[in-house]
Parts: sequence; C-alpha cells; structure tokens
Amino acid sequence: MTAKYVGHVEFPITVELGRGLEGAIACQSGISTVDGTSGKLVYRGYTIETLAKHSNYEEVAYLLLFGHMPTASQFEDFRRKLADHRPLPGRVMRLVMESPRDCQPMLMLMSAVAGLGACDPGVDDINQHVSRPADALPAETDNAIKIISQIGTLAAYIARVKSGQKPVPPRKDLSYAANFLYMVNGEEPDDTAERVLDIALMLHAEHELNASTFAGMVIHSTLSDMYSAIAGAIGALKGPLHGGANQATLAELRKIGTPDRAAQYIKEKLDRKERFMGFGHRVYKAYDPRARILRKHAKTLAEQKGQTDLWQTAEIVEQTVIDRIGGKGIFPNVDFFSGIVYDMLGIDAAMFPVLFAVARTAGWSSWILEYLPDNRLFRPRAVYTGEMDLPYVPIEMRENG
Amino acid sequence: MTAKYVGHVEFPITVELGRGLEGAIACQSGISTVDGTSGKLVYRGYTIETLAKHSNYEEVAYLLLFGHMPTASQFEDFRRKLADHRPLPGRVMRLVMESPRDCQPMLMLMSAVAGLGACDPGVDDINQHVSRPADALPAETDNAIKIISQIGTLAAYIARVKSGQKPVPPRKDLSYAANFLYMVNGEEPDDTAERVLDIALMLHAEHELNASTFAGMVIHSTLSDMYSAIAGAIGALKGPLHGGANQATLAELRKIGTPDRAAQYIKEKLDRKERFMGFGHRVYKAYDPRARILRKHAKTLAEQKGQTDLWQTAEIVEQTVIDRIGGKGIFPNVDFFSGIVYDMLGIDAAMFPVLFAVARTAGWSSWILEYLPDNRLFRPRAVYTGEMDLPYVPIEMRENG
Repeated sequence: MTAKYVGHVEFPITVELGRGLEGAIACQSGISTVDGTSGKLVYRGYTIETLAKHSNYEEVAYLLLFGHMPTASQFEDFRRKLADHRPLPGRVMRLVMESPRDCQPMLMLMSAVAGLGACDPGVDDINQHVSRPADALPAETDNAIKIISQIGTLAAYIARVKSGQKPVPPRKDLSYAANFLYMVNGEEPDDTAERVLDIALMLHAEHELNASTFAGMVIHSTLSDMYSAIAGAIGALKGPLHGGANQATLAELRKIGTPDRAAQYIKEKLDRKERFMGFGHRVYKAYDPRARILRKHAKTLAEQKGQTDLWQTAEIVEQTVIDRIGGKGIFPNVDFFSGIVYDMLGIDAAMFPVLFAVARTAGWSSWILEYLPDNRLFRPRAVYTGEMDLPYVPIEMRENG
Repeated sequence: MTAKYVGHVEFPITVELGRGLEGAIACQSGISTVDGTSGKLVYRGYTIETLAKHSNYEEVAYLLLFGHMPTASQFEDFRRKLADHRPLPGRVMRLVMESPRDCQPMLMLMSAVAGLGACDPGVDDINQHVSRPADALPAETDNAIKIISQIGTLAAYIARVKSGQKPVPPRKDLSYAANFLYMVNGEEPDDTAERVLDIALMLHAEHELNASTFAGMVIHSTLSDMYSAIAGAIGALKGPLHGGANQATLAELRKIGTPDRAAQYIKEKLDRKERFMGFGHRVYKAYDPRARILRKHAKTLAEQKGQTDLWQTAEIVEQTVIDRIGGKGIFPNVDFFSGIVYDMLGIDAAMFPVLFAVARTAGWSSWILEYLPDNRLFRPRAVYTGEMDLPYVPIEMRENG
C-alpha cells in the first residue's frame, strides 16, 4: 500500500500542496483504501474479491456504514429497514413521474433526493435536540438508510419516465438488486441477472475519498443534513471527470459492431493517438480489480443472453489495447465492463451514471457519518490576487472593460 | 490584509495543514478578500462601503462575474437578461407550488435549482462541442446568469407556498430587489424598502472562499454543470455552522419584547456564559463592515415602519454586549441586523437562509467560472486507518460486532 496514505495522521501536518488540493490530507478513515500499484481495493479490511465472492450489496452497505459485518439478526433488521423504506412519498413520486422524457437524469435524481429531504420531518434532526455532532449520529444514520433505500426507487422511476413507461412500485420481498431490476423492467430478474447486478452494486459502493464523497463531506461539515450532502455528491458524480465512461465505452463497442472489425478499428484509433474510453485509471496502474471481477460475470451474462458479437468485440478491443499499451499501465477499468453488463440487464445507457450514484450512496453516507462525531467545517483558503481601493467611477464615464 | 492570503501563489507550496483543511490553499482568486483585523471586505478591488453607497445588486453581480464594472450598454444588456429569465419553466413552477407548507425551504430551493437544470437543454453545454474547459466558459456564464435570475423567482414562490398564498408572477420592469419584494408581498415596495433590500443583497453577494462556495467548486471541478454546483452550494449554506444566525437573533429580540427589559436580559445571559446569536465572527475581530452598513439602514426602516420597540431593543442589546465583551473582538455581525431588516420587509424568518442563497448565487458562480478555464479536479486524500486482509466469516458464525 502507498505508505503515505495508510496508517495514522496527527494534525497539524506539513504537506506539499499542488493544484486541486493534490497532496492535502482531508481526514483519516477506516472505510476503504486503494492500492493502485498492485490493483487492490479494500472495504473495511475485506478485499473486493472476498466481498464479490461471498457477500451481497445489503451486507456491504451495512459493513461500510457500521464498520463491521452484521450478525444474522443485525442483517435481518437492516435488510427489513431497507425494504420497508422503498415506497416514495407521493409528492416526490409526482416530482419524478411528471418530468419530461428528455430531462437530464442525474439532475432529476439530485432534485428528487433534495425533494425527499424537503418532505422528511426528520431531515433536521441533526440540529434539533442535540448539543454536539456526535449526538446526531443515530438520526443521521437513519436518514442515510432511508436514502440508500429510496434512491433505488427514484432511479428506477427515472428509468421508467425516460422510457415513457408507468412506474412499477417496489416489492419488499426481493433483494436490493432484484427489486431494482423488477422496478426497471417490470418483471423479476433471473438468478444470474440478480447476482450480476448485486456484484456490480458492491463493486461501485465505495472507492476511497474521491470528488463526490468529498463534496458530500464538505456540505455535511456545515451540519446541514444527509439529504443535502448526498444530493451534492450526486451533482459531483455527474461530471465526466468523475462519473465514469461506461456510456461512451458501450457506444463505441456498438459502433464497431462486429468482432472482425475490432482489431483494425483499435489499431487505427491508437495510431491516431486517440483514447478508447474505459481504459486507464488515475489510481490503478495495474488491472482494476473491479474490472477483473465484472469481466467474468459480463462473459457469463453475454453467453446466457446470446450477446456474442458484443462480447467478442469487447474481448478483442481489450486484448488489442493491452498488447499495445498495457506496458504503460493502461488496462481496462471498471467502466469498460459495467456498461456492457448494464446494457444486458436492460438498463438504458443514459441511466448508467444514475446506477453508479445508487450504489455509491452507501459509500458517501459512510464517510459523512464517520466524520460527524468529531466534525470540523472544511474551509481551505484562497489567495487574493485582485486589486485594492479602486474608486467608483460613474457608469457613463466608464471605458469598455 | 493578512499577507499570507494576499498576493500570489505558485503550486506546489508547502503548508501546515490542520483538521478541516485549515491552512490549505485551494486556489488563487481575484474575486474578494476579507481583512478581519481591520474589518474590511473588498469585491474585485472595491470596498463594500463604496459599493453599498454607489452601486446596486445587478451591477455588483456583473462586477463579480466579469471582474470589472460594466459600461452603460454592458449593464443594460446584463440587466435585461436577468429580467427576461425571471419566469420559471412550468414544470419547476409546479414542483415548487405543489410543495407542502411545512417543507424545509432550503431543500426545496436545492431541489428546484436542480430541477431547473434537469429541464434546461443547455445544462450540459459545458461538455458538448467543447474540447477544453476554457471553451465552456461562455455557456457556463449564460447558465450562471439564468440561475441568478431564476433563483429569485424560486425563493419568492417558496415564500408564497409557505404562507399559503398563490404565486405572484415576476415583472420585467422592476429592479432585482423591487421585483423580489413584489413577488413576495404582492405589491410594489416603496423606495426605502427597495433600496434596503438592494443593499442587503450586495452585502451578502460574496464573502471569500467559504464552505458553500468551496462545495460548489468541488462539484463543478468534475466538469458537472452550473446547476449541480449551485444546488450543492445551497446544501452547504443550509448548515447552521455556515448559513447565518439571523433567524435566531430575531427570535431572541422578539422574546425580549420591550427595550426596558433588554439590558437586564443580556446581563443575565452573559453571566450564565451563554451566547447571543449575531455577535462575533470567525474572521472579523473588528466590527463587521456589513453590519455597520446594514445597521444604518435598519434604523431608517424601523423609524419609517414605526418598529421602535424592536429597534431600541436591538440597540440596547448591541451596546450591552459591546460594553461587556467588545474588548475580546466580539461585535455584531451582519446576521444581527439582517434578520431585523428582512422582518421589516415582510419576509418570514424561515426564508432568511433562502434569501442569503439568492444573494450569494452571484458570488458562488463567480468563483466557479473563475476556476473553470484552468480547471483541476479537487481531490484531497484520506489516510486509511482500517484493517487489512480480513477473512470472510459466514454470517451464522459471527459474534456481536
């Protein structure tokens, strides 16, 4: 692991600071860590491979939020809460369902999460009847669980709006993944589809301190509330420098069309020094562990769904890119395979970032809750480079600025 | 001025970092600077006293956004754009007007701003037809102007919902301040009321890099969009560690009731070591220059409205606190007078933070636009303190965590 970012930090510390707060330490955390050199991702001490093999999304959400694996009764209680919260308040449901089909889905989601907060009488419990941030932890944890549950319903309803269909109300008897696919597609998924989405949700649930997590923490550090913070994190995840390239990857694989054209297409693209989206990662210089896991399941799903053209095209693209530039640390990242998987699960490409937000809500709220008991407002400074003591010139005497 | 934060910064730099990113330099900026020791606030080189005396909110918004005072034709063009954008899209108007009366107004505002973005076909112009962030500046500036205009309408409609009244559509022929009061109260304000709100908007338009501005910048640094960023900033401003104490100040002045009870009330409160909200400031250790300006206008307004009890109570509270603890750098801040002013302008206390957000949108968008051409994702790191390589224990074998 990168020693600098593992261990313990005692403030104040001296750091070398670059643009974009590069090199700054915002906090210490027990939630997750990434080792980009060896391609390792760990949630609360468990490798992502261990979790993808043995666990499920609800258990991973519990692990992230509470810091340990649940006992059977803790899990059952948590799972029931997540299931019970699924139905939306009528007002928020109308807010979503009355949207035009061509609305921007991430901003719809942001608007709806803030709308959930506006209607929740418990939204400001963080600041009522409490004297210290630590006292607000139980109330904010409850709000986090509500949002983790309801954001799935919001996302599915947005998908239905965008495909011009009526909403399918959630069911309590299904897992998070199965219920989501049921609400999106109007029918229960088979076991393979449920398990693949369950794994995709686990893989996207958390990824260390990134721009969306940080945005949520900055908002919450004013002791605002969990809804405001998660809505803000959605706003950050929306940005193309953050929220994934799986839409673009899928579109380009579709454009290539058939496997026999793939190798030539990539060679020409790389010769023109163009990038194929879904390769390379700011942190991972080895094979992205999430991509490795999802690759296996994408293949199974493609075989089951008879999507052999798409899958073989993807395999040839992958191999051609690795042969050419794998030596420079350029490998497929999780976006390369997630778009293929979501598409085969019946999810429209415009919804991919929304699905990312659904999964990541568990990670966002875990960081926010971890920071709360010993909260301190995030307030970096700016250096003022402007002028001073300018005189006011009447408007008719001003020259063109 | 605090030399450390005025001048020029060349990254990388070495800094001593505290919790909450204290001591970190996020960027350099020509937008505003605060000198807390001498009680000075400067926007783009102009002191807040100069602006409050000669300028108006629309001109200050132009100054903040574009970095210089407008010529007559630039001003007229800008003023017309702000006026033209005032009417809301029907869907967003319904989103606001169908809210329950007891909804949380800042989250309503956040939801509505994100809703405006979801419906704006230009929302993602930042990432379409542009190859570099700098190219996106004109499109994002247009979006900022739309939001600065429409957030006033949103705020007024939220006020009408919360008072159970029908919305009053905006008028194009009035100033920003006059139109706002017209939409809130259903009648044109007199000249004094218009001018006092105009000044209050100028005083709240900008205040250096703070948690809400920073939250908006973090969101926008992913190249998300202006609506997502402003909505996120609203979420941060909502927090009681940030968004002002003017509600609490007004409530306590009302509780004191009459001037003859004020001195004794404050003496007893200070003897109990309790704080009176609206005094003291993290940055200002001298008299807050915004408070000094607003004080004068609050007095004029109180005399005009015959609110002598409220005003005399405030004066005695102010003097008693300054006599006791002014020597420790505790003076009234802008919140002490803004609540009194807004109340006399017919604005309900629940709306005070919303009005703050309306004014600050000019400042938020100015920082976001300034950072865009040379954008770099904000990404501080966390230090991982958790465990590694934990084995997965089957759920039935787990002990209580």
